[in-house]
Amino acid sequence: MKDVFCKIIDGEIPSTRIYEDDDVLAILDISQTTKGHTLVMPKKHCESMLTCPAETLNKVMLVAQRIGQAEIQILGAKGVNILVNCGEAAGQTVPHFHVHVIPRYLGGEGGFRLAMEAQDTSKMNLPMLAKEIADALH
Amino acid sequence: MKDVFCKIIDGEIPSTRIYEDDDVLAILDISQTTKGHTLVMPKKHCESMLTCPAETLNKVMLVAQRIGQAEIQILGAKGVNILVNCGEAAGQTVPHFHVHVIPRYLGGEGGFRLAMEAQDTSKMNLPMLAKEIADALH
Repeated sequence: MKDVFCKIIDGEIPSTRIYEDDDVLAILDISQTTKGHTLVMPKKHCESMLTCPAETLNKVMLVAQRIGQAEIQILGAKGVNILVNCGEAAGQTVPHFHVHVIPRYLGGEGGFRLAMEAQDTSKMNLPMLAKEIADALH
Repeated sequence: MKDVFCKIIDGEIPSTRIYEDDDVLAILDISQTTKGHTLVMPKKHCESMLTCPAETLNKVMLVAQRIGQAEIQILGAKGVNILVNCGEAAGQTVPHFHVHVIPRYLGGEGGFRLAMEAQDTSKMNLPMLAKEIADALH
């Protein structure tokens, strides 16, 4: 069964389109976490950024960059978060790779909240952890 | 004055390196929001993802993708958030473009919290908003 973004790409579900080319579609997120919250996705189905072909990933990210630039320029946004949730455990709700471009405003308007608290690393062996990740790189 | 990441790249400040090539460096975030929290950055100084040259952006994102894949494979992570904060208003604390790769675990271990609440769009003109952004795209 098609996911909701494949249906949007195929025009079976309406959306508010900002940009599209042969490979990439950008639409307003129906949820609008902040004003201008945009989703950028590959047209060809790919479940996760982690499994997306390099060429497609590059095209999607370059569009996300352009959307972010435009939002700073014309919406009065003072910053932008570029966010990809890979997997349900990371908050991915539609199994079709998409980049969130979330404009941020002074005063913190909107419903986007991010907390990144440092954990106690005194019992972690960071050099060993880095080596484990490095050894698993393809 | 050099930012802290330029100093790390130049070896003037120690870090726990995971990967590097001529253009890209990946290190463990000293804060470890979750176990394996990694930063991927261009070696050549660039303040923001929004102003990063396309070729560099692509190289950085492909390394971030590989780090995420490796963390799923060997750390038992069930998902990964890929996050770029562009500008202080978006939570960017070091003025040198860097991608956060944040492994996520079942049970929600760690200090990463994300809330994306939909705003009331009944008074927004979404087609007009989309057109404004589209018109500003370069």
